[in-house]
Amino acid sequence: MSRIFSLWKSKLMSVNLDIIQRHPQNPLLCASQLAQLPGGCNSVFNSSVFKFGGAYKALLRVEQRSGLQSLRLADSADGLSFTVHPEFLLTPETEEQALYEEAIYDPRVTEIDGKHYICYASESRFGCQVGLAATHDFKKFERFGCIAETQNRNLVLFPEKINGKYYRLDRPYQDGAGNIWMCESPDLIHWGRPRCVIESRKFHWDRGKIGAGAPPIKTKEGWLVLYHGTVHLCNGLIYRIGAALLDLEKPWIVRSRAKAWLMSPEAPYERVGDVPNVCFLNSAIPDFERDEMRLYYGAADQVLCLATCRITELIEFAMHA
Amino acid sequence: MSRIFSLWKSKLMSVNLDIIQRHPQNPLLCASQLAQLPGGCNSVFNSSVFKFGGAYKALLRVEQRSGLQSLRLADSADGLSFTVHPEFLLTPETEEQALYEEAIYDPRVTEIDGKHYICYASESRFGCQVGLAATHDFKKFERFGCIAETQNRNLVLFPEKINGKYYRLDRPYQDGAGNIWMCESPDLIHWGRPRCVIESRKFHWDRGKIGAGAPPIKTKEGWLVLYHGTVHLCNGLIYRIGAALLDLEKPWIVRSRAKAWLMSPEAPYERVGDVPNVCFLNSAIPDFERDEMRLYYGAADQVLCLATCRITELIEFAMHA
Repeated sequence: MSRIFSLWKSKLMSVNLDIIQRHPQNPLLCASQLAQLPGGCNSVFNSSVFKFGGAYKALLRVEQRSGLQSLRLADSADGLSFTVHPEFLLTPETEEQALYEEAIYDPRVTEIDGKHYICYASESRFGCQVGLAATHDFKKFERFGCIAETQNRNLVLFPEKINGKYYRLDRPYQDGAGNIWMCESPDLIHWGRPRCVIESRKFHWDRGKIGAGAPPIKTKEGWLVLYHGTVHLCNGLIYRIGAALLDLEKPWIVRSRAKAWLMSPEAPYERVGDVPNVCFLNSAIPDFERDEMRLYYGAADQVLCLATCRITELIEFAMHA
Repeated sequence: MSRIFSLWKSKLMSVNLDIIQRHPQNPLLCASQLAQLPGGCNSVFNSSVFKFGGAYKALLRVEQRSGLQSLRLADSADGLSFTVHPEFLLTPETEEQALYEEAIYDPRVTEIDGKHYICYASESRFGCQVGLAATHDFKKFERFGCIAETQNRNLVLFPEKINGKYYRLDRPYQDGAGNIWMCESPDLIHWGRPRCVIESRKFHWDRGKIGAGAPPIKTKEGWLVLYHGTVHLCNGLIYRIGAALLDLEKPWIVRSRAKAWLMSPEAPYERVGDVPNVCFLNSAIPDFERDEMRLYYGAADQVLCLATCRITELIEFAMHA
């Protein structure tokens, strides 16, 4: 069957493609709410929201009025209204961190064995790497420094060891493009066995650079990977969100990958902002009992938003859309 | 002291800058000598020459008439006349190797604890990575696959563990440029703690991308690193060779770095070829007793050449030139 024919065939399938509900309180956080923070606030976006104890925490990317990035912590009982703390998190503590971690942003939080691991883009004059820190309480942090060479970004950790090894997805830079790669590690410090697992697809919505969004989520059908994909149109990039399932035991094998995008900029707060046309996912929180997935995403490099969908429909989407 | 003043001051120093002798038999190997190899020969260059037993071996980068790269082994009693074996070395043995190691070239050989390790550029549709193999006899090879994510190149291993860890230099791609980085490893498979150790220098001969040439050589004054540096002029790049010394115990610290280039394209076989104006070093063989360093380098992406210098003068050069 030719590729073109298979494209057309997919249009005839009956999978529900409209499974995302944007939350009516969107945007959940915007600059004006954070204006009183030290350094002010130009924008708050691409942030990681996660369960902690019985409540929610958020690790926020706050761009100050100076243009400098900062990570700030926020608390929330319901994952909708947040109390933002003014302190800067994960500022450099050593000369080496000061050198390689000049601007840190786009955090992703993964809980492994009761410990929370934070991966963050870490930019310096050398380009962009990825830093790692771990914490039990978000007060004291164990710092790992950078765990990827330049240029790399969009690194997420799997929430458990597989076959005795830690796994990550990342996005090494590749001549103006970039695919999603995987590495494995015995200790979270030393990484090896690089493999490309999800490639950008010609002619599709994710034909430009792509990168993991939320840390992978374990489901019966496989590791659910929600990722962003880009396309470069004449007035810039469009960042959309897509879905794939990786094999549970051999996570470098793609079991299925939706052809259609899951979510595309549409609401005014996704269309208008410092970077128009961006939906950028940093965290997904499943509630299997209620069959609900919460997708926290940055919109237009400006505000923090929430969308929800049914997990069952999302898996169906990843398998057949 | 201003930078400009220090530049001028360096010109007044009395260090000998002309310490390199090109071998009168250059080029040692060229395409016409290898014409009868299967696949023919367009060029033979960027190859690693090393001591093995009482003699020399060379791991050659042979570009066939098809344009495809191949690695071939050669033997030599004196390191000047080589017998080239027709067999292809390190061709893919697994599906994964076939995927990531489509074109392999620019080998560097490091002996660690009596075992020879081969690092090689490994190109595929994903870009350029670096593969690793090990051998005792150059007949059987232990394959490690790729040990760096895309894009990376010019990876060399240190010849011994330092503080219980393996070390490497490499050159991750950085937006059209590239510096020399270092990683460490417990097992040669998993690598971490990336650090930039030698940066390209504005206004200098090595202001473009730079990369390690030969595997580092241990001297009393530090790890001697001979590297290539580029400058982009209006008709293309010039590849020259420079010298630096790294701390023996903390090899991420540069103890000294010559301002001047050590070797620059000058001979006709360096000026003329598929890529004009290239001196590209893959191996350096010290003979401390005779105070002689052999530098085996590819010239103009066309032929394999040899230059020599006194080790004492080279160290002096690295410290003060």
